[in-house]
Amino acid sequence: MRIAVCPGSFDPVTYGHLDIVRRGAKIFDKVIIAVLTNDKKQPLFTKEERLALLREVTADISNVEVDAFDGLLIDYMRKRQAKVLLKGLRAVSDFEYEMQMASINRKLDEEVETLFMMTNNQYSYLSSSIVKEVAKYKGPVHDLVPPQVEQALRDKLAR
Amino acid sequence: MRIAVCPGSFDPVTYGHLDIVRRGAKIFDKVIIAVLTNDKKQPLFTKEERLALLREVTADISNVEVDAFDGLLIDYMRKRQAKVLLKGLRAVSDFEYEMQMASINRKLDEEVETLFMMTNNQYSYLSSSIVKEVAKYKGPVHDLVPPQVEQALRDKLAR
Amino acid sequence: MRIAVCPGSFDPVTYGHLDIVRRGAKIFDKVIIAVLTNDKKQPLFTKEERLALLREVTADISNVEVDAFDGLLIDYMRKRQAKVLLKGLRAVSDFEYEMQMASINRKLDEEVETLFMMTNNQYSYLSSSIVKEVAKYKGPVHDLVPPQVEQALRDKLAR
Amino acid sequence: MRIAVCPGSFDPVTYGHLDIVRRGAKIFDKVIIAVLTNDKKQPLFTKEERLALLREVTADISNVEVDAFDGLLIDYMRKRQAKVLLKGLRAVSDFEYEMQMASINRKLDEEVETLFMMTNNQYSYLSSSIVKEVAKYKGPVHDLVPPQVEQALRDKLAR
Amino acid sequence: MRIAVCPGSFDPVTYGHLDIVRRGAKIFDKVIIAVLTNDKKQPLFTKEERLALLREVTADISNVEVDAFDGLLIDYMRKRQAKVLLKGLRAVSDFEYEMQMASINRKLDEEVETLFMMTNNQYSYLSSSIVKEVAKYKGPVHDLVPPQVEQALRDKLAR
Amino acid sequence: MRIAVCPGSFDPVTYGHLDIVRRGAKIFDKVIIAVLTNDKKQPLFTKEERLALLREVTADISNVEVDAFDGLLIDYMRKRQAKVLLKGLRAVSDFEYEMQMASINRKLDEEVETLFMMTNNQYSYLSSSIVKEVAKYKGPVHDLVPPQVEQALRDKLAR
Repeated sequence: MRIAVCPGSFDPVTYGHLDIVRRGAKIFDKVIIAVLTNDKKQPLFTKEERLALLREVTADISNVEVDAFDGLLIDYMRKRQAKVLLKGLRAVSDFEYEMQMASINRKLDEEVETLFMMTNNQYSYLSSSIVKEVAKYKGPVHDLVPPQVEQALRDKLAR
Repeated sequence: MRIAVCPGSFDPVTYGHLDIVRRGAKIFDKVIIAVLTNDKKQPLFTKEERLALLREVTADISNVEVDAFDGLLIDYMRKRQAKVLLKGLRAVSDFEYEMQMASINRKLDEEVETLFMMTNNQYSYLSSSIVKEVAKYKGPVHDLVPPQVEQALRDKLAR
Repeated sequence: MRIAVCPGSFDPVTYGHLDIVRRGAKIFDKVIIAVLTNDKKQPLFTKEERLALLREVTADISNVEVDAFDGLLIDYMRKRQAKVLLKGLRAVSDFEYEMQMASINRKLDEEVETLFMMTNNQYSYLSSSIVKEVAKYKGPVHDLVPPQVEQALRDKLAR
Repeated sequence: MRIAVCPGSFDPVTYGHLDIVRRGAKIFDKVIIAVLTNDKKQPLFTKEERLALLREVTADISNVEVDAFDGLLIDYMRKRQAKVLLKGLRAVSDFEYEMQMASINRKLDEEVETLFMMTNNQYSYLSSSIVKEVAKYKGPVHDLVPPQVEQALRDKLAR
Repeated sequence: MRIAVCPGSFDPVTYGHLDIVRRGAKIFDKVIIAVLTNDKKQPLFTKEERLALLREVTADISNVEVDAFDGLLIDYMRKRQAKVLLKGLRAVSDFEYEMQMASINRKLDEEVETLFMMTNNQYSYLSSSIVKEVAKYKGPVHDLVPPQVEQALRDKLAR
Repeated sequence: MRIAVCPGSFDPVTYGHLDIVRRGAKIFDKVIIAVLTNDKKQPLFTKEERLALLREVTADISNVEVDAFDGLLIDYMRKRQAKVLLKGLRAVSDFEYEMQMASINRKLDEEVETLFMMTNNQYSYLSSSIVKEVAKYKGPVHDLVPPQVEQALRDKLAR
């Protein structure tokens, strides 16, 4: 079975993330969305909230699993017997950072292969940070995130 | 009337910013310098100091207005009936970030158009951060900022 | 009157070009599409064909003019009393080349200002070369160029 | 069966190409190396020579097939029932071009997905052009291409 | 005597840094490794620890000196009568930042020249941050840093 | 003696080239300007004309030598006992190409080190191609090339 891991903070998940996951799920037997929980930045949504939102918005894709991890990604992949790391690329700045990460990961484990997909043009500007920025000032986010995430942002920021 | 908005932190204004404003003022009927006041970073100069310095150094350009805003830039532009967002581009890294911002702004309001000007070569290395770094260690900044800003930096950093 | 010039080979005009022209025509009093006729590369369409196609596909925009030029662009702009050069930016590689051209043009005439617009995301991959490549192998181009251009490509390549 | 296509000119095949093919062959059921034969540039090696060299140097990888194609890549992939286009990325300039190609290919056929692998650091400088340039002046190419290709270059350039 | 200065945080020194220093020491009469001590970021290793590690790992290169500085680099260089600033370049993002810094340094002192070396391909992904990240989760760092640094990381992170 | 080689086509030499040579001549004992004569592109100026112009415009720098070479640069450097290859960097696109060339040259000869200088901001847009393009249409080139080159361009293009 070919398992691909899509790691990230998903704080919150956007239509850009979903596009990569959906396309990945057509190519691999299973896609594991792995939520990084030891990120230095203070997230807007808790680990549990992020996992719940991801599960809701991917409920219709049968071969997607949502999980959390901390520590080295490469150790998590070994544990899950996944050989493919699947990442979306939006821009040149993504590209250089991801190139560094792919190199270090290959150094740590030769068996792990990083594969990149170009983000769909219509989401190339999209990031979780931009979504939070727009939502904070009550701008419209319905084209950027699924309805459940839109609602969660509204609830979270109303407090 | 064609109104262009130049948004930024201007902490403090440099000759690089002034160059863009001056060139923009030749093309548009009015240029509004819009000082972003909800920036996460703690500024060196207060909102009032930044506005005062900007007004002083643009006093000789009749069609420039200095203003402050917070919230979404797109909301500010609607309020001011401005259709053009005018930005300076210095480098590839600027370019990608600005491309993202221009895309999200078009998504939020189709009527707003972002126009970019290349920063004059002689200011391509210049940023407010570099000015503050040089000033902090008493390096010369007279080629980087107008005299009023040079004095303000000296006063601020002497404290 | 504020006149903007959009220079290019337009061999042939694509939806990407049209998007820039249309958006420019909302900001400036007049947009002149200036077809470069001294290009070194052998074009697929003659100068006359390119001008005719451009005129057809911009017929509904009242403040657009289609013209041809050869020699230095800066001389053409002086002759037409245009102060603004309007260019679309798609990618980092565009950016660097255009930055060089904007610098040399400012060196040749300080009065001419180059303004850049980001190409709409949905056309960011689009170029005249790609259109010709796809058409050559009878791939579908109806999403890439207006119907008149699609027909012209078919006629031209059938010969 | 998951089939990936690796298209290119392979004029001649280098260790950089082989690295991508070998890593791809671990992830996909079959990798088809598709030699583009309608390239505008005059190749150094004929189509037959390029196919023969590729077959020799991939003889030890059981799930690799070597083939030639002309026309639109997307048509070739449909014919071969391949859904994955596998490309190596070396540098930012590769990245932008490949991003354009991936976009146009998705436009032409939504079912085809382009996946990118980062070229191994030790081959990041390597291209068929550089190999031919070095070989032309009798520089050493044994670290750049397999022995069969080295010999073929020597024979070809001795004429 | 031609003196080159290699400035940086060296928190901690990696094989990437050592590669640049070693190659620089072949070209210049003396290379001074200048540890920046007024960095805003909280370092993992104290100034004294960083200096000690650098001295240990460069002990075999006779014309290398290890020193600390704070304030403007340009002032430090004048004090040390060094005319050359030697920097490693790994990626496009490095390149743009370093281009800015080289420009501002030339502005501050025309006599100082910044020279860049490309980082060896095998270290192009390597940074002190990545080393600390890997070490924090007990990943292997022996290919990334000298043995003394590996031991120091283990001691520091065990606490 | 530390010898640096500045290779290029110099068709013709510009103020940008001269800036790099002049700055290099302050750092190294000797700078050899090495005119590449086996370039595929048909040059505007003959090898002899390019050498003569370079000699004229560098006549005031005592430690500069002008020479021609063909074949592999690395072989030329061995013959001249030069260990340093000195290149100017203008932009990201230069950077990637030069990074490739520096890697291949290190592969061919570990003793040769490539050092890069950032082109002065005021010449960052300047290239021999742009100079020829401007001169061809009788645009002013006196800010771009020395007077001797300006005259040579006028003579050459008048024919």
